[in-house]
Amino acid sequence: MFIVAPIFEQSAAGHSITMKRPLKIVEHFIDGKFFGYAVNGTPADCVKIGITTILNFVPDIVVSGINHGSNTATNIIYSGTVSAAREACMMDIPGIAFSINGRTSENIDWAAHAAANITVKALSHGFEKGKLLNVNFPNLKKDEIKGTMITKQGTSKFADTYDTVHDVIGRAYHQLKGDFVNLDDNNELIDQVAIENGYISITPIKLDSTDHEEFEKIRNWNFAEVTP
Amino acid sequence: MFIVAPIFEQSAAGHSITMKRPLKIVEHFIDGKFFGYAVNGTPADCVKIGITTILNFVPDIVVSGINHGSNTATNIIYSGTVSAAREACMMDIPGIAFSINGRTSENIDWAAHAAANITVKALSHGFEKGKLLNVNFPNLKKDEIKGTMITKQGTSKFADTYDTVHDVIGRAYHQLKGDFVNLDDNNELIDQVAIENGYISITPIKLDSTDHEEFEKIRNWNFAEVTP
Repeated sequence: MFIVAPIFEQSAAGHSITMKRPLKIVEHFIDGKFFGYAVNGTPADCVKIGITTILNFVPDIVVSGINHGSNTATNIIYSGTVSAAREACMMDIPGIAFSINGRTSENIDWAAHAAANITVKALSHGFEKGKLLNVNFPNLKKDEIKGTMITKQGTSKFADTYDTVHDVIGRAYHQLKGDFVNLDDNNELIDQVAIENGYISITPIKLDSTDHEEFEKIRNWNFAEVTP
Repeated sequence: MFIVAPIFEQSAAGHSITMKRPLKIVEHFIDGKFFGYAVNGTPADCVKIGITTILNFVPDIVVSGINHGSNTATNIIYSGTVSAAREACMMDIPGIAFSINGRTSENIDWAAHAAANITVKALSHGFEKGKLLNVNFPNLKKDEIKGTMITKQGTSKFADTYDTVHDVIGRAYHQLKGDFVNLDDNNELIDQVAIENGYISITPIKLDSTDHEEFEKIRNWNFAEVTP
């Protein structure tokens, strides 16, 4: 197993990558023992540079996380954790993203074991290149977990606003704040609802974002008229 | 019409947003005349702060671009241009992203007119909240354009590698480089193929990235066994 991780925390990095400056790779030691590689980039950068430059082989799987804070519903779009697994998927390596629904670590041990088990289980079922799973754990005690549920991405989102803050000479700036609004309460098969109900949520994700229903519909709009 | 744009160019910003520092809004003037608002953030930040903080009303539509460089296939995932339109979509405002397949500006005038026409056409067909279009123009002369095509997101991608570069005291860094590999040659309904064939490509995009086929399949994997 090889670890490649961003040097700095990367909340809301989305699927950004670093193209305007070169990246630095640093070996990271814990208690004098080699732990992994640190990169001054985004989660997606770490996968890209990890596979093309650090490793000398193509790994069987890339796992990302466990992120503190759930990555469900539209948060998948902002998530660096999911983006790292998605980057692997784009490189023809199966990817799994793991997140836990909380900022605390008291339940991280069973979650780490479950993450390992889910990874092995997926590989045993022929989970292969081009495939991508997004896994979210409830932040509950091990014996409070009700089970595992295969889910769909929800539509819940942050209702964002900005607080006005001022610098030392009184100039105004705007700091993002937001409240997560659950819009899928009535559907237990939705990722965020599943974890709130005490289930481990496993959502299969794909790269294609085409709206195939809308595709058929807008073919009837007379766009020929707009051709220059 | 109101313009809100990043102060700095944002290639490959993806759908990242700024949450760890406040944003600054600056009025931007061209030839002494107010042009729009500049924000020291990402394209998605600009939409978020533009609608919540700069405007005092909800706009009918958000358009993003015209970006220099196509945003087709898997590049949609890295694209700040598409992310700005997607952010609008997430805020219940219809969004359209526009890009042109080149780094030069000699064909930007007809493309700008076509972008306006496409926007009006979409609104006339009841293009509404939650909807999102990704439009790509060929970088051709106006009379070389063959027409408009409704397309699907392709699977083409960059084959990325890193060049090793050195700083003034000889330390190694890694600079991203990549070649776009077209994997959809045989399908004229794919975004990248359409623009290479001389058509304006219009792709309907959705926020849901659930792999619904895989959802049915992995429900049969016995994940219950991994419950802690």
